[in-house]
Amino acid sequence: MSAVSNTGTIFKAIPEGLPNPDVHFEVIHRTIDIKNLKLDENDFILRNLYLSLDPYVRLTMREPQIDSYMPSNLIGHIMSGIGVSEVVKSNNPNHKVGDLVYGFIGWEEYTHIKTDAKSTNDYHFKNINYHKKLLKEIPLSYQVSLLQFSGLTSYGALMLLGKPKAGETIYISCAAGATGNLVGQIAKIKGLKVVGSTGTDEKVNFLLNDLKFDAAFNYKKVDLDKTLSELCPNGIDIYFENVGGETLDVVLKHCNRFARIPVCGMISQYNITNPKEKYGIKNLELTFHKSICFHGFLATDFIGSQVEKDFEKDMLEWVKSGKIICKENNILGIENAGKGFTDMLVGNNVGKSIVKIADY
Amino acid sequence: MSAVSNTGTIFKAIPEGLPNPDVHFEVIHRTIDIKNLKLDENDFILRNLYLSLDPYVRLTMREPQIDSYMPSNLIGHIMSGIGVSEVVKSNNPNHKVGDLVYGFIGWEEYTHIKTDAKSTNDYHFKNINYHKKLLKEIPLSYQVSLLQFSGLTSYGALMLLGKPKAGETIYISCAAGATGNLVGQIAKIKGLKVVGSTGTDEKVNFLLNDLKFDAAFNYKKVDLDKTLSELCPNGIDIYFENVGGETLDVVLKHCNRFARIPVCGMISQYNITNPKEKYGIKNLELTFHKSICFHGFLATDFIGSQVEKDFEKDMLEWVKSGKIICKENNILGIENAGKGFTDMLVGNNVGKSIVKIADY
Repeated sequence: MSAVSNTGTIFKAIPEGLPNPDVHFEVIHRTIDIKNLKLDENDFILRNLYLSLDPYVRLTMREPQIDSYMPSNLIGHIMSGIGVSEVVKSNNPNHKVGDLVYGFIGWEEYTHIKTDAKSTNDYHFKNINYHKKLLKEIPLSYQVSLLQFSGLTSYGALMLLGKPKAGETIYISCAAGATGNLVGQIAKIKGLKVVGSTGTDEKVNFLLNDLKFDAAFNYKKVDLDKTLSELCPNGIDIYFENVGGETLDVVLKHCNRFARIPVCGMISQYNITNPKEKYGIKNLELTFHKSICFHGFLATDFIGSQVEKDFEKDMLEWVKSGKIICKENNILGIENAGKGFTDMLVGNNVGKSIVKIADY
Repeated sequence: MSAVSNTGTIFKAIPEGLPNPDVHFEVIHRTIDIKNLKLDENDFILRNLYLSLDPYVRLTMREPQIDSYMPSNLIGHIMSGIGVSEVVKSNNPNHKVGDLVYGFIGWEEYTHIKTDAKSTNDYHFKNINYHKKLLKEIPLSYQVSLLQFSGLTSYGALMLLGKPKAGETIYISCAAGATGNLVGQIAKIKGLKVVGSTGTDEKVNFLLNDLKFDAAFNYKKVDLDKTLSELCPNGIDIYFENVGGETLDVVLKHCNRFARIPVCGMISQYNITNPKEKYGIKNLELTFHKSICFHGFLATDFIGSQVEKDFEKDMLEWVKSGKIICKENNILGIENAGKGFTDMLVGNNVGKSIVKIADY
C-alpha cells in the first residue's frame, strides 16, 4: 500500500458576493497511489509546494456559460491556481522527476497533469508551459510572491503602461496587496512620489515604515477626494488601478493631463453578482478632457517581450541587493486555502498571500 | 462714417440640457468702425470667413467656476469658436493685412484680437497662434472642415492611438459627423473593415453610398448588441468613441483582445446637466479582461509631432486625388450659427457643420 494523502479543496458552490470558505469550498481528503498510477504519454505528477492566492480566481468562480478571460472553475472539481511544484513522476521528456516547475496546479497536495484534458477545469492543467528556470539563489516561495506572474504584473504594467518619470506622482490602490506593494517599491526606485491606500492602519504603517512610501492612508477612514487633494497637490500622473468603482471616479478628477492608468483589476466589483448593483463610472469624460490613457492588461501580455527580460534582470538584482522587500502572507496547509483566499479578497493580508503546501 | 455691420452671437444663458438657439444665444446687430478703431500694439482685426461648429463648444457653455479643459464662454460675451479669417487691419508684425489665418474667432463678422485680453472669454482670442499656412490649391472652407484641427483629430487619433492594421474591424459612432466620416474614410484607405452608426437613414445612405463604408446602421432603429454581433462577427479591434454612455458599455462587450478605443468625445453626455443623470459605465472590467486601451486625446496633443506632419502630407494628397471626400454642412450667415450649432448637437447634419460668414 503506497497511497499517500492528497487533501485538496474543491469548488462546491457558486458564490453570490463574497465567497464563504465553509460554503463555497470543500476540503476533501483523498489519497493518491503515485507508485501504481499509470501515466499516459506526456503526463506527469506534481508534488505541490506553494500555491499563489490571486484575486482573478474569484472571476473563475462563476457559471461556466459566462465567458471571461479565464476559464471558469467547475463545481465539484478541484480549484485551480498558480503554484510551484516538484515533479515526482513523469512520462514527459520535458519534465523529469526532481524538476521544480511553476504553472497551474490544483489546490491539492498532488496534481496529475494530463495532456488529453477535456473538461474546462482540466484546461488549467493543460495548456500552460510549466516554467523550469527556478532560481536556487532565492527562497522558493519568491517564485509565487515576487517573481514570475506576480512580479511581472507589477513591473510590466508600471514600466510599459505607466511610463514612470522621476518626480511624478503615482497613486496606488490596494497598495499593501501583492501587486500594489511591488508597484510602489519599484516606483520608489524609479524616483516617483508614491502615495498608497489600503484598508487597515496596520497596513498603512507597513507602507510608510517598511516600504517607505511618501504617503499612505486608510481609505476606510478618510474622504478620498479631500485626501488626494492634500497628498497629491501636484495631481496624479499614474494611477495604478486595482479596485475600480467609486475610487476610480474620484481619482479621474485628480489626474493630470496625459495621466496613465494601468488597469490591473477592479476588486471592488468582483463580489457584486447582480450587474445592476455594479458601480457605473461617470467621470470617463475626463479621459478626453485630460488625454488620459486607461490601459487594461494581463500579466501574460508581457511574456516574451523586452519588458519581461528587463523584469527578470532588474527584479533579481533588486531582491538580492535588498532594494525590494518580499512581503508574504504565508498560509500553512492546503486545507486553509479557501479561508486564505477569502481573507485576501477582503484585504486581511499584508503582502502576497501564498499557501505553503509542503516542505521542499 | 465708415462703420460696417458686425453682427454676432452672444452667449445669453447657460443651458440645462440641449441649448435652444432662441434662449441661450442672442444675435446682436452691432457695427465696427474699422478705419477709426485704434489698435494697441500687436492687436489686429479679422474679417471672419468661415466658422467651425464643434461639439466641444457645448462644454464651454457652463458656469465659469467649473473647471474643464477649455475655458468657459461667458454670459453676455460673444461666443468663441475656430474659424478662417482675413486680416483687415493690423498693428502686429506677424499678421499683415491680407493674410489668411486659422484660429479662435468670435461668432461675429469681425473680431478684434487683443494681446492684453484679461477676461476668460478673451482668452479664446489671445493665446492661440494663428496659423498662416493656408493653402490656395483647395477651397478655403476645407481649412475648417478637413484640414487643421478637424482633420488632425481624425487622422492623429486613428493613426497614433487606433494603430490600424489592414484587415481589422473598426466601429465608429457618430460616423456621419465631422470626425467620424473622416476616420471612416481614412480607415478604408488603410484597408480596414469599416462599420459606422448614425442617427438617420439619410446618413446611413451617405456612409454606404458616398463613403463606401462596409456597413452602416441607424442606431435609433436597432438593438446595438445584436447589430454589432451581425456586422462585426470577428469582433471590434478599434472603436472610435464619439458618444459615450450605454453605447460604450455595449461596445466593450464586442471588443477583441488588445482593442484600442481613441476617445474623441462623449456627445451623449454633454447635455446632461445633472451629474446624477449621467450614464455610469459598468463594463470597464472588460478593459483588463481583454487588455483594451482606452485613450482620451485632444487634437492639440498631436501638434508638433510626426503624426501632424504625416497628416498634412497624406490629407492633402488624398483630397487632391479624390480619395477623401469633403462633406460639408454649410450654414449661411453668422446669425444662423446658434441654430446650426444645436442642429449639429442633435445630429441634423451630414458631414462637418460650418458657417459661411462672408465671401472671400
